[in-house]
Amino acid sequence: MFNLYWADERGLPAGDRGAAYGDGLFETISMRGGKGVLLARHLDRMVRDAGRLGIPIALADLRKACTAAVTRYAGRYTNQQIDGDWVLKLTLTRGEGGRGYQPGLGIRPNLMMSASAMPTMPDASGVAVDFSRVPLTVNPLFAGIKSLNRLEQVMAAREIDGDLFEVIMSDSAGNLIEGTRTNLLLKTSEGWVTPPAKDLAVAGILRQWMLEKLRAKGEVVTERDVNIGDIMGSHCLGLYLLNSVMGAVPVGVLAGQDLPVDDGLATIFNPFELLE
Amino acid sequence: MFNLYWADERGLPAGDRGAAYGDGLFETISMRGGKGVLLARHLDRMVRDAGRLGIPIALADLRKACTAAVTRYAGRYTNQQIDGDWVLKLTLTRGEGGRGYQPGLGIRPNLMMSASAMPTMPDASGVAVDFSRVPLTVNPLFAGIKSLNRLEQVMAAREIDGDLFEVIMSDSAGNLIEGTRTNLLLKTSEGWVTPPAKDLAVAGILRQWMLEKLRAKGEVVTERDVNIGDIMGSHCLGLYLLNSVMGAVPVGVLAGQDLPVDDGLATIFNPFELLE
Repeated sequence: MFNLYWADERGLPAGDRGAAYGDGLFETISMRGGKGVLLARHLDRMVRDAGRLGIPIALADLRKACTAAVTRYAGRYTNQQIDGDWVLKLTLTRGEGGRGYQPGLGIRPNLMMSASAMPTMPDASGVAVDFSRVPLTVNPLFAGIKSLNRLEQVMAAREIDGDLFEVIMSDSAGNLIEGTRTNLLLKTSEGWVTPPAKDLAVAGILRQWMLEKLRAKGEVVTERDVNIGDIMGSHCLGLYLLNSVMGAVPVGVLAGQDLPVDDGLATIFNPFELLE
Repeated sequence: MFNLYWADERGLPAGDRGAAYGDGLFETISMRGGKGVLLARHLDRMVRDAGRLGIPIALADLRKACTAAVTRYAGRYTNQQIDGDWVLKLTLTRGEGGRGYQPGLGIRPNLMMSASAMPTMPDASGVAVDFSRVPLTVNPLFAGIKSLNRLEQVMAAREIDGDLFEVIMSDSAGNLIEGTRTNLLLKTSEGWVTPPAKDLAVAGILRQWMLEKLRAKGEVVTERDVNIGDIMGSHCLGLYLLNSVMGAVPVGVLAGQDLPVDDGLATIFNPFELLE
């Protein structure tokens, strides 16, 4: 079991390992009243990745905490509409204690529950993005994990200004990997293409769901390296940015160059209809 | 200026970016009563690296906060001895606010001051260390920075058990880079050898001070890649682990193999005499 903290009441304790070392995980979930978009997948990911980090947590306890969070927060951010939009964030840390980096034995995790208003949705007719100058390094031990070690994404996000919606980060080999808060999905003349999960800093919930839906519909989906030529070349029919709060966002402009806009994905597959 | 938090009083606020993303830095300083070992270098590093991350902080303000920390904490951890030992930790975060990863404009940093008792010093006749199975990845943008993104070190520190003092981490090319909380310094038949600063996750204060002292004394110091052969080979006369709280710690056993123990370094150069 974990210690539960409500962000509107108090912060994590001074000795918490989340603040000290980023020793934890988080999930950000799009809510409609008391239900969450792809909620079960978010909670499953947190439990699975906590296991990879050696943080003990049970799915049933996490579910109970979410129910309590709905009771506490839903009304505040939805203008009292029963199915109004809000955002729930779960921050799970290893807890307090240990000698420096070395965690204490049997320490109890801390779970912080916070809520916020739904952000403004991006322009569905195509957003502007650019390339980040911040290189992305992914430790294979943590590939895909939404850990609290996010300084690379913070530094890249500082480059987002003006009308930019996102910047795309590359690895040291020059492969395009992901945005600061979005995964990449390309529509090409040979099918759908996305960078492989093993290279991702964060393997998004919406990305995985979209890939499954596309494959179930018989579409060709390839996980492989993506470079600039794949996007700027004539066989690219559209680039989507995937984020589980904002959905599948089509890109209209990349580094000042117009891209063909394919905006059919969000209509075909709408995860926001799948409330749990 | 920053908001000052005392760890014995309260934790950082719920919306702090340190806990959310590891968006900040820390310093751990060995104290003797009201004075600190290499204190000026620690504070200079924090100010310099805060600049690299775009966190505004003035050295004069940091110094004032340290003076206040001495007043508050020194007596509690030194058994009332005027020059008793304790440890001061500074955690600087970018502060609260912003949209997700993107920091808000003009947000005020948070500085948390905490104190603890001096840890037990390691055996000066030689400690036992092993190789870590956790790969070390260093983003060139953050090389050497003591940021709050330390999940790799936490996972490696979980491998330290029994009589082990430390584990040594390697990069993806197999070069030995550093321990979880220590830098490496080899005494060899051709002089002193240490991995180059550009490859380090954390460029330690004691490492830099030692290199300067050795060079000033006319010793040959080479910063270059270090592999297992460099340590296990016959030209290695001793391996030191450098940490600004624990000093220059000689290694006696590496992965079960005895190493020659050179224990002269701490005697020749004792940073603990240099109180500021």
